[in-house]
Amino acid sequence: MKPAIIVVDMVKDNLKEGSRHPVVLEGRAILPNLQKLLEESRKKGFPIVFACDSFLKEDFIFRGKDKFYSIQGTEGAEVADELNPRPTDTILPKRRFSAFFKTDLAERLRGLGADTIVVTGITAEVCVSMTALDGLCHDFYVIVLEDCTSSQDKERRQSCLNLYRNSTLYPLLRVMTLSDFLNEVSRG
Amino acid sequence: MKPAIIVVDMVKDNLKEGSRHPVVLEGRAILPNLQKLLEESRKKGFPIVFACDSFLKEDFIFRGKDKFYSIQGTEGAEVADELNPRPTDTILPKRRFSAFFKTDLAERLRGLGADTIVVTGITAEVCVSMTALDGLCHDFYVIVLEDCTSSQDKERRQSCLNLYRNSTLYPLLRVMTLSDFLNEVSRG
Amino acid sequence: MKPAIIVVDMVKDNLKEGSRHPVVLEGRAILPNLQKLLEESRKKGFPIVFACDSFLKEDFIFRGKDKFYSIQGTEGAEVADELNPRPTDTILPKRRFSAFFKTDLAERLRGLGADTIVVTGITAEVCVSMTALDGLCHDFYVIVLEDCTSSQDKERRQSCLNLYRNSTLYPLLRVMTLSDFLNEVSRG
Amino acid sequence: MKPAIIVVDMVKDNLKEGSRHPVVLEGRAILPNLQKLLEESRKKGFPIVFACDSFLKEDFIFRGKDKFYSIQGTEGAEVADELNPRPTDTILPKRRFSAFFKTDLAERLRGLGADTIVVTGITAEVCVSMTALDGLCHDFYVIVLEDCTSSQDKERRQSCLNLYRNSTLYPLLRVMTLSDFLNEVSRG
Repeated sequence: MKPAIIVVDMVKDNLKEGSRHPVVLEGRAILPNLQKLLEESRKKGFPIVFACDSFLKEDFIFRGKDKFYSIQGTEGAEVADELNPRPTDTILPKRRFSAFFKTDLAERLRGLGADTIVVTGITAEVCVSMTALDGLCHDFYVIVLEDCTSSQDKERRQSCLNLYRNSTLYPLLRVMTLSDFLNEVSRG
Repeated sequence: MKPAIIVVDMVKDNLKEGSRHPVVLEGRAILPNLQKLLEESRKKGFPIVFACDSFLKEDFIFRGKDKFYSIQGTEGAEVADELNPRPTDTILPKRRFSAFFKTDLAERLRGLGADTIVVTGITAEVCVSMTALDGLCHDFYVIVLEDCTSSQDKERRQSCLNLYRNSTLYPLLRVMTLSDFLNEVSRG
Repeated sequence: MKPAIIVVDMVKDNLKEGSRHPVVLEGRAILPNLQKLLEESRKKGFPIVFACDSFLKEDFIFRGKDKFYSIQGTEGAEVADELNPRPTDTILPKRRFSAFFKTDLAERLRGLGADTIVVTGITAEVCVSMTALDGLCHDFYVIVLEDCTSSQDKERRQSCLNLYRNSTLYPLLRVMTLSDFLNEVSRG
Repeated sequence: MKPAIIVVDMVKDNLKEGSRHPVVLEGRAILPNLQKLLEESRKKGFPIVFACDSFLKEDFIFRGKDKFYSIQGTEGAEVADELNPRPTDTILPKRRFSAFFKTDLAERLRGLGADTIVVTGITAEVCVSMTALDGLCHDFYVIVLEDCTSSQDKERRQSCLNLYRNSTLYPLLRVMTLSDFLNEVSRG
């Protein structure tokens, strides 16, 4: 397995300290696990991609009830300080849900020698799922790390991830815990 | 609302009469609703698109436990007879989950004057969800018709659709029943 | 070199016997070379793709002075009888100039094991060039066979191909004659 | 006409003062015309997009004889100082020839209300042509400004642009001078 780590939408607007928004609270709750994942991945030389919403205010998705967030060029669209991206990481602005949509992510991943993507971040049922399933469509093995992804509450996250456990897509798509993933890659 | 109807993967391999496979049984169970939807949509002149898996045996998705199905050029990849496509309908072979993936569906829909897609078919948690969310990404309003879509069982379907009810994507993305949809369009 | 042969827009509407249209006359003039190319390629097991315009009448490109041609579902959009496609060949309907535009050609070629595309057909300065340069963009080596491609006259064809001879893209992109290509592949 | 101005690959690596490379010399020669175009376009409120090669060293196109240039994250991949981009302009990193390839340019242009792209920059026969023809494929009217585009020499530029003058794509695709364009838009 040659994994690349994809961290979806862990941007400042989604992780504001002190906010009581459920997406923020749940998102902040996975920060320690993500920090551990990044630390171990750096030791092993796995490439790391921060895929970050980078919207325009005119974007169609803001015609619903969503407030503006993660707008291109604003601080809110930057990776959260807690995750401390390095110059060797890839920052990939994305315009819609999937990190593959209108981006060159598939080409980059192949350039980096990856055959597997490890998808993490928020939210499980939209951007994480879309990136995971789109990864399959681009011929990558996919692992979703359940305790490194979140939604507005834990029931919703589980309900979403349960759809992809033991599905017909297994083992091309697997849902795993962080510790199971780290065990698997440490075994080589 | 200028809707186009998208019928996902209602192909012969997924709907074989007599099969006991849960996807087939659940898929056949929505045939009457789909027939009604198509009949009413034809009366109103809504464009109809049958998006049909059209795989190659070498495709990555067959490296898991899935058996070959809906293979390009085979009868199994054709729209099920029960849905009786007309020459004015669009048959759109697709190579992966979303009907928008490596196809010209967005361009076609704009050519047809549609601003809304009504997504139906199988399975709720993979091809239907991906097509629905991808539709949003291509700037279409999206309606998923819950009683015109299926999965391997009803719990899984509900569990999936519940993720998108009253989400932050509402009302860009709505989950509705067939009769609510028909009422809404008959009110004009 | 693992070449795949791409035959661009050699469809009935572009090759009507008896027509005096310059594109038709020049297109028919390359039929014997294309027949030879296909025959030799079949002997060697090179995959063959017929990329064929498959337009809708509403398509933007018909808002200029072009008359309707190669319309989806019409006989005019079929591969010319003289080239006699086999069931093992790939017929790839395309919606715009490049054979890669909104199609799965790159994925198919990788599935077929090709690392090089050999581009032929009409017209040199639009669909052939676009397909050739797009092939480079999708990380394939590209050969344009000068005597298997045509335009509305030979000067225009040469003028176009001269732009890509000994350019900075060489040797990723090469312009060759049919006989040079056949010599190169027969040497192994 | 609602034009957007696309300036292709006018990056520092392509425009180094003092260089004797023919692409640089010819590129620098169009700077005054581009400055005039940008000034007039700003007065009229036309959106301006700088589409800039943003390569990785591993990219396929460097497997030929091209030296590394316009590498992502380097100063050489920035817009040339002489063109002085403003915060309201769009800087669009691109990974291949066409400014539409794996980018969201088409969506952005629609968001900006543009129906026409005015293509300028370097080089005429590769990135400018590809962007122009790809613009047509994305349903935009296209104008190539002949005296705002360059190649390694003027003959090659002319030879390329002549292919698209009075072609069957006219008037969807037009080749014009800067002054003709400014006259046309000042007439309203």
